[in-house]
Amino acid sequence: MRYELYYWPTIQGRGEFVRLALEEAGADYVDVARKGKAGMRAMTKLLEGTRVPRPPYAPPFLKAGKLIIGQTANILFYLGGRRGLEPRDEAGALWAHQLQLTIADLVTHIHDTHHPISGWLFYEQQRPAAKLRTRDFWRYRVPKFLGYFERIIVKSGGPYVLGRRLSYVDLSLFQVVEGLRYAFPKRMKRFEKKVPRVVALAARVAKRPRVAAYLASKRRIAFSQWGIYRYFKELDA
Amino acid sequence: MRYELYYWPTIQGRGEFVRLALEEAGADYVDVARKGKAGMRAMTKLLEGTRVPRPPYAPPFLKAGKLIIGQTANILFYLGGRRGLEPRDEAGALWAHQLQLTIADLVTHIHDTHHPISGWLFYEQQRPAAKLRTRDFWRYRVPKFLGYFERIIVKSGGPYVLGRRLSYVDLSLFQVVEGLRYAFPKRMKRFEKKVPRVVALAARVAKRPRVAAYLASKRRIAFSQWGIYRYFKELDA
Repeated sequence: MRYELYYWPTIQGRGEFVRLALEEAGADYVDVARKGKAGMRAMTKLLEGTRVPRPPYAPPFLKAGKLIIGQTANILFYLGGRRGLEPRDEAGALWAHQLQLTIADLVTHIHDTHHPISGWLFYEQQRPAAKLRTRDFWRYRVPKFLGYFERIIVKSGGPYVLGRRLSYVDLSLFQVVEGLRYAFPKRMKRFEKKVPRVVALAARVAKRPRVAAYLASKRRIAFSQWGIYRYFKELDA
Repeated sequence: MRYELYYWPTIQGRGEFVRLALEEAGADYVDVARKGKAGMRAMTKLLEGTRVPRPPYAPPFLKAGKLIIGQTANILFYLGGRRGLEPRDEAGALWAHQLQLTIADLVTHIHDTHHPISGWLFYEQQRPAAKLRTRDFWRYRVPKFLGYFERIIVKSGGPYVLGRRLSYVDLSLFQVVEGLRYAFPKRMKRFEKKVPRVVALAARVAKRPRVAAYLASKRRIAFSQWGIYRYFKELDA
């Protein structure tokens, strides 16, 4: 089956978690909105179109045959079972999904470091709040979230989150580590010493042949100041 | 099976979405942490215990036999399939889950109206940011989120989100409507005119025999200033 991924064409954003899963799985897919204006129109039509019985709330969403699936973690849950990116047993699949939802919570916190007030305002319009939120984020959230994943890797025996086999959770954790390195290079460098297994996992994911080929390709959009992870020197103090 | 729900004993919080599902399903369950100190100890042990192979990141979590399931939407997905609270076909179950994840996003926005900076600070320490975030929330987020659910009910034919049969999504939407009424009585009263189907759905859910019995019981914790939904007069202007 040829999957159709719908996501904003110029950013990694939440779509990147899906792109990484599709790439690692060697899936046949089209990144629709990156195919020019017609692609963007197609995306808008599915979001707003009156003929769509079950329109998603927002991108990313995946079209698989007639099925349209929204919400990043839900897409990964669907793909995981079909593309060998999650355990085959129900308990294992639910566990992987639970971890993915935990990553989703972390991603919201990351976004809110630079936009704690509103996505409709510029960073410069919410700078004092951003500084405070970032301080809180690095004091409490990062240690708790990444410390949790470090602990889970210890429990599973590693090297991946669930143990010896890679799952979509690893791809997402890799993406978060890379994003934090982009947005907070100094802070992250200091922090990485505390989560050696998470860091080793990210390196291992980056070296997987399909992931490495993807990262080196034009299909991988670069980190930028328009995505979830943004670099502001004053927030990285 | 007797389910064990683990959640903070004095607030509705995210645990309430699970409580409502268990109640509507007529499930046999224990709200463990509300059973005194021993209950709280049991919860802490599962969160932090070294013997738990797959510890959840945070409450709520559900113990079903040997299985421990965390993340609210994941718990509902698990329960939904077993207790008749979601469609039986895979596409329908994924759709219900997608909508629940959209509600989860809204719930985070609701919480952040009064705590946009940090959950470790008092409201009074982040009041200016809270005012700005609340303005944004009512200007953009509420119309978009609740407007989306209104549109979905039109598409499904109603009276419930998925159509003629109740799902856990309806229970959660009811809870959100009630929470917004508690936290923002004036704003919500004005806004409700714009989403008549959502409002009618909430009223219908409240009248279901098992839900009504639950709401009238001591098992239902009252809304309070410690939960997701908090009332501050200045935010309801």
